[in-house]
Amino acid sequence: MPDILDGKKIAQKLKDQLKIEIENLKIKFNRVPGLAVIQLGNVAASSVYVKAKTKAAKEVGINVFDHHLEEATNQNDLINLINQLNKNEDVNGILVQLPLPKSINEEMVLNSILPGKDADGFHPLNIGKLSISQKNDESLMIPCTPYGCLLLLRELNINLVGKNAVVIGRSNIVGKPMAQLLLKESCTVTTVHSKTINIENICKNADILIAAIGKPEFVKKEWVKEGAIIIDVGINRIKTNGDKSKLVGDVMFSDVEHRVKAISPVPGGVGPMTIACLLRNTTIAFKNVNKYLK
Amino acid sequence: MPDILDGKKIAQKLKDQLKIEIENLKIKFNRVPGLAVIQLGNVAASSVYVKAKTKAAKEVGINVFDHHLEEATNQNDLINLINQLNKNEDVNGILVQLPLPKSINEEMVLNSILPGKDADGFHPLNIGKLSISQKNDESLMIPCTPYGCLLLLRELNINLVGKNAVVIGRSNIVGKPMAQLLLKESCTVTTVHSKTINIENICKNADILIAAIGKPEFVKKEWVKEGAIIIDVGINRIKTNGDKSKLVGDVMFSDVEHRVKAISPVPGGVGPMTIACLLRNTTIAFKNVNKYLK
Repeated sequence: MPDILDGKKIAQKLKDQLKIEIENLKIKFNRVPGLAVIQLGNVAASSVYVKAKTKAAKEVGINVFDHHLEEATNQNDLINLINQLNKNEDVNGILVQLPLPKSINEEMVLNSILPGKDADGFHPLNIGKLSISQKNDESLMIPCTPYGCLLLLRELNINLVGKNAVVIGRSNIVGKPMAQLLLKESCTVTTVHSKTINIENICKNADILIAAIGKPEFVKKEWVKEGAIIIDVGINRIKTNGDKSKLVGDVMFSDVEHRVKAISPVPGGVGPMTIACLLRNTTIAFKNVNKYLK
Repeated sequence: MPDILDGKKIAQKLKDQLKIEIENLKIKFNRVPGLAVIQLGNVAASSVYVKAKTKAAKEVGINVFDHHLEEATNQNDLINLINQLNKNEDVNGILVQLPLPKSINEEMVLNSILPGKDADGFHPLNIGKLSISQKNDESLMIPCTPYGCLLLLRELNINLVGKNAVVIGRSNIVGKPMAQLLLKESCTVTTVHSKTINIENICKNADILIAAIGKPEFVKKEWVKEGAIIIDVGINRIKTNGDKSKLVGDVMFSDVEHRVKAISPVPGGVGPMTIACLLRNTTIAFKNVNKYLK
């Protein structure tokens, strides 16, 4: 039987560590990290995420500044709010829940967040630092989902050096930073995507397969090498019988489960790790500012 | 017989275009791009590069500000000079010739260059923008050597979409940005390096092979697929008979030549392209500043 990578449990472990760290930071600096959470409108999925992130942040002792705005908020007002939060010393991390309404230029909004407060790790300066940095630079703000995937892999206590890693998907928020992280672990890294020819054959050579393409149950048994490790980033809602629906990943779990060494389930795999890594980034942002006060 | 990618000729074409563009910019703005070139000491190879870059810049009509400093220059003085150049409106690009003496923190020096004047494209903000950006964003400052490699590939007028590209080497100045550029062209991209297992087999599947590992004649015939396209970034001086020496690339040219579709030679391949792309970055930096004056 494969190892099922229990993201909920591993995320809880990280949150427990953060909680202790934040208690110590509070003693040392007489303040705790603060996270501003901005949501526009009431898209159901966004509300679910915001609620989960807020709850987790409070659990570990992070102050949450809730900014739930109307969907019709205009871009200038949103950027003005971000500018205020950039200046607010009680706010260490700023999170803008995506997607934003179409009338708003997402890139411009994200780039207005001070890189040092970029809790999601999406700012180009943070992306560039991630690319250039050495392994294990503990001051980096790293995109939460790929970092969460790496922490799942590390939980297996295997040597990653020289492993063939294949990343399916080349998004800015998962695929590209994931490839950078695996390269830093000295994996041999291949990025495949919608234009890749013979994607199945490439995946079949993967010791480590990261599926982040956003297509339900895209990866089948024939794509997976015996003994591979699979991290499934996809969260897709599909219809089952009648009006019912369920969440599935980018990997057909039941199809590949019996031949892999380890696999992360959906839900309960990468999702909780993403949230825990958001809290980690917020804590790092706090430490990066406060280290000069020691 | 393969296409020999004549970097000297292709670079000259780019320089001719830049010359015309700079003449037009001069008419429009009554000024031309300026490039500050900083060299510490007299390492022979550095002097050769600085001389070639300076000559090429002048040829296309770029003003060169020469800062040849003593090898013993201390880091603060160097950063002070960069700060002055950052403020100098006549300077659009700042180039610090590497390597710097060991007493100086290279990263700190490079990061002190204003991203908008970062002629080499090494600043983390520019690296991050490159990663995030869409294809063909003409305002980007891109690391010169990998961009030069891409221009060589484009010269072949082949469709890059879906091609298997393998980048040998994961340096910050060549391998990593090269992988980003090829991914933007919708290649399937694999990065291999010193820790890769069975590197030969991976290279053998490459439609496009970029050798940037800095090992003389590392890539042999058996590593190369029939009909592949090879870009050789290596510049290695090896001893021949007696006291003589010659420059060779990372690819054993004579060994692979007969089986490839196209290959760039060393010297006369990537080298001249790197210099032409430095002039391109300087011109882009000028345009990025002056576009608001139109």
